[in-house]
Amino acid sequence: MLKNFTKRKKEDKEALSAEIKALRAELMGQQQKLMSAKLPVIVLIEGWAAAGKGSLIKELISEIDPRFYRVESPVVQHESEERYPFLYPYFKAIPVNGKITFLDSGWMENVVRKYLRHEITKDEYRRRLRQVYEFERQLRDSGYLILKIFLHIDKDEQFDRLRSLAEAPETEWRVTEEDLWQHREYKNFRETYDEFMRKTNDTVQWHILDGSRRKTAVRDAMNLLVSEINFGLDSGKYKGKPFEEEFPLKKMPKLSEVDLSLSIDDEEYKAELKRLQTRLSELHNIIYRKKIPVILCYEGWDAAGKGGNIRRVAYPLDPRGFDVHPIASPLPHESNRQYLWRFWTRLPKTGHICIFDRTWYGRVMVERLEGFCIENDWKRAYNEINEFERMLTDWGAVVLKFWIHIDKDTQLARFTERQNTPEKQWKITDEDWRNREKWDQYETAIDEMLQKTSTKNAPWYIIESNDKKYARIRTLKIIVKALEKACEDHFKQIMD
Amino acid sequence: MLKNFTKRKKEDKEALSAEIKALRAELMGQQQKLMSAKLPVIVLIEGWAAAGKGSLIKELISEIDPRFYRVESPVVQHESEERYPFLYPYFKAIPVNGKITFLDSGWMENVVRKYLRHEITKDEYRRRLRQVYEFERQLRDSGYLILKIFLHIDKDEQFDRLRSLAEAPETEWRVTEEDLWQHREYKNFRETYDEFMRKTNDTVQWHILDGSRRKTAVRDAMNLLVSEINFGLDSGKYKGKPFEEEFPLKKMPKLSEVDLSLSIDDEEYKAELKRLQTRLSELHNIIYRKKIPVILCYEGWDAAGKGGNIRRVAYPLDPRGFDVHPIASPLPHESNRQYLWRFWTRLPKTGHICIFDRTWYGRVMVERLEGFCIENDWKRAYNEINEFERMLTDWGAVVLKFWIHIDKDTQLARFTERQNTPEKQWKITDEDWRNREKWDQYETAIDEMLQKTSTKNAPWYIIESNDKKYARIRTLKIIVKALEKACEDHFKQIMD
Repeated sequence: MLKNFTKRKKEDKEALSAEIKALRAELMGQQQKLMSAKLPVIVLIEGWAAAGKGSLIKELISEIDPRFYRVESPVVQHESEERYPFLYPYFKAIPVNGKITFLDSGWMENVVRKYLRHEITKDEYRRRLRQVYEFERQLRDSGYLILKIFLHIDKDEQFDRLRSLAEAPETEWRVTEEDLWQHREYKNFRETYDEFMRKTNDTVQWHILDGSRRKTAVRDAMNLLVSEINFGLDSGKYKGKPFEEEFPLKKMPKLSEVDLSLSIDDEEYKAELKRLQTRLSELHNIIYRKKIPVILCYEGWDAAGKGGNIRRVAYPLDPRGFDVHPIASPLPHESNRQYLWRFWTRLPKTGHICIFDRTWYGRVMVERLEGFCIENDWKRAYNEINEFERMLTDWGAVVLKFWIHIDKDTQLARFTERQNTPEKQWKITDEDWRNREKWDQYETAIDEMLQKTSTKNAPWYIIESNDKKYARIRTLKIIVKALEKACEDHFKQIMD
Repeated sequence: MLKNFTKRKKEDKEALSAEIKALRAELMGQQQKLMSAKLPVIVLIEGWAAAGKGSLIKELISEIDPRFYRVESPVVQHESEERYPFLYPYFKAIPVNGKITFLDSGWMENVVRKYLRHEITKDEYRRRLRQVYEFERQLRDSGYLILKIFLHIDKDEQFDRLRSLAEAPETEWRVTEEDLWQHREYKNFRETYDEFMRKTNDTVQWHILDGSRRKTAVRDAMNLLVSEINFGLDSGKYKGKPFEEEFPLKKMPKLSEVDLSLSIDDEEYKAELKRLQTRLSELHNIIYRKKIPVILCYEGWDAAGKGGNIRRVAYPLDPRGFDVHPIASPLPHESNRQYLWRFWTRLPKTGHICIFDRTWYGRVMVERLEGFCIENDWKRAYNEINEFERMLTDWGAVVLKFWIHIDKDTQLARFTERQNTPEKQWKITDEDWRNREKWDQYETAIDEMLQKTSTKNAPWYIIESNDKKYARIRTLKIIVKALEKACEDHFKQIMD
């Protein structure tokens, strides 16, 4: 892509200014329409050091009302300093519906730089290319307009710019070691940028602008932005179609086939609980030191015993190293972003454990059944979620998913008990009764979910919870075993 | 306080367990009541390294539903690594109404450690003591229940604990250099902890618990928590009374005395705009390098020209180094916390500029006039805001506040023009017309605000904006002058 790049010709300055002025006026007029259409826009500006990314953004935003945009410039940290998946800062930065996020460097710079620094392997580099592709597709499919611009200058131009910055005392500090290193490695960078762009050009196209012609670049960038927005306004929010990629799946039984008579006696329960909690506490120390992130996902019928189960798992953990995230209906700033955003922003740091009390699977259960999203959305979600979880396990996380299961009679008994016990009444709401009426529809949705998303890397476990104590022991056993394995694998990995 | 500390006697283990069990059950019952009463609770656990803070919190939370609490353990960073005021992580961590935040070490550890590391001077240490006092009082006054616990062990006990941690291979890593340093400096720490607690004991009392008796400490802490919550539930949300501290004030005219005929001709405007923007751009580079944070606050009548003014200031700035925060009505997660929280969490990093398009002064204008808070609240706010801004300028920030001023006729003309211009219609709402009807009430409130909060360190400037261009130039001049002075002072400070 950079190979075939041809420099722009010089244009008449005044004509350019007039064009820019007209485009700016159009952009101003678009702001309000974007809000009405609830279209979110991401403008990614990548490019060479000293190519003028900052100045370009300055021109793009100069007439936009600050209520409508944000500029983000996530720093590329060294791999060893990162505590989150590499896409974390970019996913965090996505705008709410109707607003624009400008990114001054983004996921491309991040991946390319780490690769050229030899902080990530060739394999990991390829994995990240795929993750970037998935990231862009998921956002596009849920209606984000994405504009990707690369600001190009050749090696001589970069040399001149870096020199003039370095030679003036007031700008000298702006030339960093990283910039100089890029300049020395110009050829390597060019090849890698090129490869990156070629491989991420299908879903969302790249636009390469000539950074050596500042004004032309501003006009062109503004032109792209205005057209992109007009296109979005005309064609309406993009609604991605469902698709099916093959993930290695674990075979799951249907809910109706599960043996719910399993139980445990009190004495064994007490002994096992103590043993497993002690072991889990030890393992928490190890995973903390080894910096393994752990994500435990709880879903289940109302009154199945999720809360009590979670408390037994959380009790032996060091409170400094874990979080429980109860997931209720999304707040406005959450529902106005892609649905995975509120989970991305709650991911644990490496070495930490987080427990989700309800999860992103709401998409294919309550959102599906209550019509909170359209059919395309929940049908696409199986794959999106598998991708999301693969990204988590590729990152090194242990991901375990529990469906806490009871039968309809047991639920009724527990609802009735809650109803009749004053201090438990708050736990039972009309909504619980309404959901109960839809038991069969939910069962169909859950069976489908279990079949389609129990991947080898992030499997589902159906936990028989008619006997809550049995369920707690079973969950603890699964967690302990998975963490033991993770610690062992981690050791092997280091030894390799 | 630590001097008079007497160790607890040994108690019967089973009796203790029974007491803890009973308290736990009571705490469980309180959760829902806290939610209904909308009472937020902060539990601060301070104490010696290896005193058992983590385990204590583990016991306190073990039966609380995760929906009702969070555990936070902000790390004490070295002063040089901090980019925010030192109270930032603690203010950020305050819970929403009805929930509990447990802090595993907090503001005391932060201040004491930095002081003993000689990272802050004696003067700065005293200032922070005052800021802590103000922080606690502000939260208490707005209805937060605060429980402060210090977990005490003597030097020998600490030695034994650190040794047994260090000697077991699986816990060895938990003993840090910082812990060992504290142990060597035990006496200094004890004196400083003691002083800190004595000086922050008036508004919210400290409770010193004997960390060497783990179970007794759990019972006592739980007892304190349960009683504190019961007290809060019985007496209702605390409503702090207004108070007046003397701040050095800048004399302000009344709005009615302001000469709104001031204007600028087009040619001068263009030349001055260019000159000032160029200078501002240079200054942005300097303050970025000197790591001076800058906070620009805009308030003003509807249609006074805030937006255009802000854009002229923002245009020359490097987008990587500034943010504009448009402030609308608070979202639920904001209005459910102390009113300054949403501004604390938007503070700029050192070296960055942030522009607030409307500010915390909403408290003494719209919230006052529309009855969104009670009289005590807005009357107290003058002092709370002065304290907040003093904290900002003590931190090193430049804080400038602009009241963008027009007269009633000019507003009417601009409203009418907006109404009649299709692409500007979104800018005018029924609310604007309703606010206009209350012009006189607003004027009284604004005059009072300007009189009471134009401190020498964070002054107000009334910007005559019947001529918007005049207003822009005047604002830019004030900003440029203030930044020049800040850069100079900063230099002097370093030379001292």
